[in-house]
Amino acid sequence: MAVATNAEIPIETAIGTTMLICAEDVRGMAVHGRDGDKLGTIDKLVLDKRTGQVAYVILSSGGFLGLGQSYHPIPWATFRYEEKQDSYAVAIDKRLLEGAPSFRPDSAPVFDESYGRRVTDYYRLPPDGAA
Amino acid sequence: MAVATNAEIPIETAIGTTMLICAEDVRGMAVHGRDGDKLGTIDKLVLDKRTGQVAYVILSSGGFLGLGQSYHPIPWATFRYEEKQDSYAVAIDKRLLEGAPSFRPDSAPVFDESYGRRVTDYYRLPPDGAA
Repeated sequence: MAVATNAEIPIETAIGTTMLICAEDVRGMAVHGRDGDKLGTIDKLVLDKRTGQVAYVILSSGGFLGLGQSYHPIPWATFRYEEKQDSYAVAIDKRLLEGAPSFRPDSAPVFDESYGRRVTDYYRLPPDGAA
Repeated sequence: MAVATNAEIPIETAIGTTMLICAEDVRGMAVHGRDGDKLGTIDKLVLDKRTGQVAYVILSSGGFLGLGQSYHPIPWATFRYEEKQDSYAVAIDKRLLEGAPSFRPDSAPVFDESYGRRVTDYYRLPPDGAA
């Protein structure tokens, strides 16, 4: 690499963090709730084949609520990457997760559009641009 | 949800194809070149942790050019999803791949920003909005 001044190095490189990651390596990254509690870890990403944009994330919660391992699909729109901890924060809390769509390891649904809409509806995300 | 007429159902649902897919299930999907030839299959997706957008794809080519299995990173911007065949078409051909960044199974690079830039530069993708 040629000599580069700090001004030429994008911020993410200067602070030593890469922002690109293999999709499979996202598994296991921690997800914290609005109050800072750890809600679980990322199990899978579900994305749109056309756009290459993540639509929702399957959150794995081990022993959450004392019920053993469970999985919660959560819309990507609620995710924010926290660079310092290399983890994610979501704008929801445990209470909201309690009644949310979820499934057990042995009964995974088909992650299609209709399931995606159920997830989006539960979290009451506004349609694009609407309030 | 209330009763929906067909007009309210997004096209992708009406024609019976799901556009959402687990990131891990993308592996093995066929990738065809500009001339229709099969260039290989998808091995991995590399995405941006902040935006959840795929940045580039690792294409696996078995025996391509008679050199055994090799891997080529290709910018997502060149990918177009072909619904009929449930595969991808890229706006490049075999000749362009010949001199492109690539690696062998036993010498995978770090898929970071600098590698991403090398890939983007090779395919001469214009910066956002520029010609």
